[in-house]
Amino acid sequence: MTAVQPTPVVSSLVPTLSGSAYTDASVFAAEQERIFERSWTCVALAADLTGPGAFRTVTVGRESVVLVRGRDGVVRGFLNVCRHRGAALCTEEAGQLRRNLQCSYHAWTYSLSGELVAAPNLTTMPDVDRAAYGLHAVHLREWLGYVWICLSEGEEPPSFDDEVVGAVVERLGDRDSIERYDVGSLSLARRVRYDVAANWKLIVENFMECYHCATIHPELTEVLPEFADGFAAQYYVGHGAEFGPDAAGFTVDGRAGFDRLPGLADDQDRRYYAITIRPQVFVNLVPDHVIVHRMTPLAPDRTVVECDWLFAPGVSDVDASVELFHRVNLQDFDACERTQPGMRSRAYRGGGVLVPSEHHIAEFHAWVAERLA
Amino acid sequence: MTAVQPTPVVSSLVPTLSGSAYTDASVFAAEQERIFERSWTCVALAADLTGPGAFRTVTVGRESVVLVRGRDGVVRGFLNVCRHRGAALCTEEAGQLRRNLQCSYHAWTYSLSGELVAAPNLTTMPDVDRAAYGLHAVHLREWLGYVWICLSEGEEPPSFDDEVVGAVVERLGDRDSIERYDVGSLSLARRVRYDVAANWKLIVENFMECYHCATIHPELTEVLPEFADGFAAQYYVGHGAEFGPDAAGFTVDGRAGFDRLPGLADDQDRRYYAITIRPQVFVNLVPDHVIVHRMTPLAPDRTVVECDWLFAPGVSDVDASVELFHRVNLQDFDACERTQPGMRSRAYRGGGVLVPSEHHIAEFHAWVAERLA
Amino acid sequence: MTAVQPTPVVSSLVPTLSGSAYTDASVFAAEQERIFERSWTCVALAADLTGPGAFRTVTVGRESVVLVRGRDGVVRGFLNVCRHRGAALCTEEAGQLRRNLQCSYHAWTYSLSGELVAAPNLTTMPDVDRAAYGLHAVHLREWLGYVWICLSEGEEPPSFDDEVVGAVVERLGDRDSIERYDVGSLSLARRVRYDVAANWKLIVENFMECYHCATIHPELTEVLPEFADGFAAQYYVGHGAEFGPDAAGFTVDGRAGFDRLPGLADDQDRRYYAITIRPQVFVNLVPDHVIVHRMTPLAPDRTVVECDWLFAPGVSDVDASVELFHRVNLQDFDACERTQPGMRSRAYRGGGVLVPSEHHIAEFHAWVAERLA
Repeated sequence: MTAVQPTPVVSSLVPTLSGSAYTDASVFAAEQERIFERSWTCVALAADLTGPGAFRTVTVGRESVVLVRGRDGVVRGFLNVCRHRGAALCTEEAGQLRRNLQCSYHAWTYSLSGELVAAPNLTTMPDVDRAAYGLHAVHLREWLGYVWICLSEGEEPPSFDDEVVGAVVERLGDRDSIERYDVGSLSLARRVRYDVAANWKLIVENFMECYHCATIHPELTEVLPEFADGFAAQYYVGHGAEFGPDAAGFTVDGRAGFDRLPGLADDQDRRYYAITIRPQVFVNLVPDHVIVHRMTPLAPDRTVVECDWLFAPGVSDVDASVELFHRVNLQDFDACERTQPGMRSRAYRGGGVLVPSEHHIAEFHAWVAERLA
Repeated sequence: MTAVQPTPVVSSLVPTLSGSAYTDASVFAAEQERIFERSWTCVALAADLTGPGAFRTVTVGRESVVLVRGRDGVVRGFLNVCRHRGAALCTEEAGQLRRNLQCSYHAWTYSLSGELVAAPNLTTMPDVDRAAYGLHAVHLREWLGYVWICLSEGEEPPSFDDEVVGAVVERLGDRDSIERYDVGSLSLARRVRYDVAANWKLIVENFMECYHCATIHPELTEVLPEFADGFAAQYYVGHGAEFGPDAAGFTVDGRAGFDRLPGLADDQDRRYYAITIRPQVFVNLVPDHVIVHRMTPLAPDRTVVECDWLFAPGVSDVDASVELFHRVNLQDFDACERTQPGMRSRAYRGGGVLVPSEHHIAEFHAWVAERLA
Repeated sequence: MTAVQPTPVVSSLVPTLSGSAYTDASVFAAEQERIFERSWTCVALAADLTGPGAFRTVTVGRESVVLVRGRDGVVRGFLNVCRHRGAALCTEEAGQLRRNLQCSYHAWTYSLSGELVAAPNLTTMPDVDRAAYGLHAVHLREWLGYVWICLSEGEEPPSFDDEVVGAVVERLGDRDSIERYDVGSLSLARRVRYDVAANWKLIVENFMECYHCATIHPELTEVLPEFADGFAAQYYVGHGAEFGPDAAGFTVDGRAGFDRLPGLADDQDRRYYAITIRPQVFVNLVPDHVIVHRMTPLAPDRTVVECDWLFAPGVSDVDASVELFHRVNLQDFDACERTQPGMRSRAYRGGGVLVPSEHHIAEFHAWVAERLA
């Protein structure tokens, strides 16, 4: 892992996606079906499911999913639809079940593992196959302290190691680099939900490049002076942006933050690493905390982004740390919202252009196109 | 008319409609055109049109219709569209006309019977056929004190006796049973308008079965204990659900209601009868009052339900009676709203299942399918 | 120019457009593309762009356009889309630029004439053609003190003289008649923005005929008694409606207005002239002021109308003058809003009819149909 000064060799402008990719309802529907409902997506902090019976409802693609921790301590996910007549099993965003998942319409009752265990008046009917009427389970994994699910309908979901862990390894150079942060041991100190009037791909593209940093992120470029040059750290394997000499910590005014997380290597100190895990997760690593963004696209021009700030347990008074990236978020999402309307213009019919420091966005475009093909 | 204890013989689960039937815009448009604009629908209490010139505007399918009582005392219905340039003739929900229906845009003027009787500057133009430019009349009948209309465009609407009266006879066993309530002589004591975020068919299905009663209707099952068993009274010709021993009346807390309506037979006393008149009316009969629901579907996922409580003239202090079914309504519509989102899920792509006590809902599904075919 | 008393010779009723022309999304999209994005449209008062760097953003068809006055004093118009990644250049409705048009996302910078003059990190890249990455300019003309633009994509826009000036000449008989008002020298005294829930064509049709005047415009027919007869002044070349004997001025209560504008001919005094410039401008001339309506269609059933009242510089206390046409506007737009719902009715499937004094509206319908063909 070395901190190189970026020197791009490609000098021409390359085209972006066309504007309709960001506005068409049919493109968005295809993305929901072929990207968000087939990929691993990060949907909840495992610690939010505090104990047996704790549940959360989340949206993935066009589906509502119930996450529930079983009496065996394992988190499972089910489509939030009763097998009888289709009522939602859980309508609250989060809560605590007593013993089972019971539909509030006709009282069909499922164990926390999803089996149908009771249905009024059906006790004496041998021809109702209770196993066959269990809830629809979704693929689920826990990693970095988060619950990841995949709605892939085939038997085998895509490889979690390739798609999720692989994205991190490709960025950092190895898996150890992220394990040292021990993200799963950190505590949630702040969560902000942003409702952004922009297509999800504009938000990904924005996160992937730093050509805009000098223009819209004064606080961030103060802490990370190399970002003012416009080269995305993400472009270089293993490179983390170095804190500037005046920045004591990753805070809104450069004041000191907290103790370095215990497992970090020395070359991870005083550096910021940004990682994109397609299609909807951004991980941001700094020495004393981790910031995780999760996106939920709701419409071609609307995306909800939830951002978690995670610190070592026991840390308090995180305002100066949180405020830095909260401002970055607001600045970025504002830029995305200013960009969305132009996607409908005849001026963007054939798309725009990527400058050299944005060329890696073309890989993201290819990734999207491949999945929609 | 006998009160039998239901003993269903079919034990298997049978499929419902698929989820798209409750969400697709094209299905909804077809239903508006082929069901709501071709069937007899109940649109107003005749008594609401108090005298000559009294009018109401109502929505049927995708049309606005003006109901107006003529100087001959007869209620008529017309498409609410001026024949000149299309302006709405009446924009208020209800009101009183002085003498004619006059368009407020260019003053084309129609008699209360719908003929064009005046148009500025056209007095000397013999080639304008005033008869040909009368308002578009709709088929209209009065029954049970209500105005029923049919927008069928052919000369002959479907038979009112078969479709409307027939539905009641099929349920109660004969026509006399409902005539004894003399619904037309009752007075409106309360009207509540519910704006329900669910497809109209979910509301019909909910009304047709009582499998949900034990789960969501504690007050109702207290008064009608057999409803706790989950068998819909509607399934058995002539059967009315008997009041429980602790229920002095059909009230929210079982207190006594009012005197039995004068014409009732003894075997109609202390019983509740529910009748579904497709596509949009529910009639509820109890000894001392009648409750009528009328639905207006506005979108695949939005239906307005107006509910009238009718009592013998002179009755006052109806709160305990009204509160019972008002709560039932809120409980039912809440269940329907919890069900609507699941209709879009892949889990409901092939629909759900009907348990034996819901099997008669399949007849409703077949009725809908036949009309859309 | 002579004031004739209208005597129409055509007595039959002729058909209008069918209802779907006012409601279908596909018709509206075609109108945006083939009418509003290809015609000359009036978008701003030139005086609103007060000096070099002053800008306004306006909507034409489906496009956002930036109007900006250059350092040479010339107003230019550009699609409001950065050539880099599509962000909007100006997001405020109006404002003052310092020196350039700079994109707030990545700081691509354009001169007030639209050339790309700077882009971060691209200084040493000879293969980026800055001329090729200038803003997309639109055709622009100034006339009557207003900025008119045309988004026609071909090299040559339609002839401004034929389409815009020609419409005025056709109505007034010659060009001198309007030049005498010296509209460009007048000052904006009042601007009202009306958000109308009706199709733009209903608003045009309403403006073109006066058959409705007796019914809905009591104040206007008081000032212009011949309007009570229902004949549209627009139908007769050069005819202006004469003020009634009791009207000292074009005011809400007939009180005197202001001095006659200096250039007017005697036969223009005490007369009202209405001019329709397709597709979206109405000009109203009275001796002491000029009223200009500009429409922006936003949806099949939604149109924004901006109305300017222009008086000689120095005039004050214009309330009684403004109030007259403000009331006319409210009366007209209310009528249009009452008409819009009927466009969806089966009763208007084949359209309505035009009476003789409305027959000239058929020319407008033919004009629309020709452009959509």
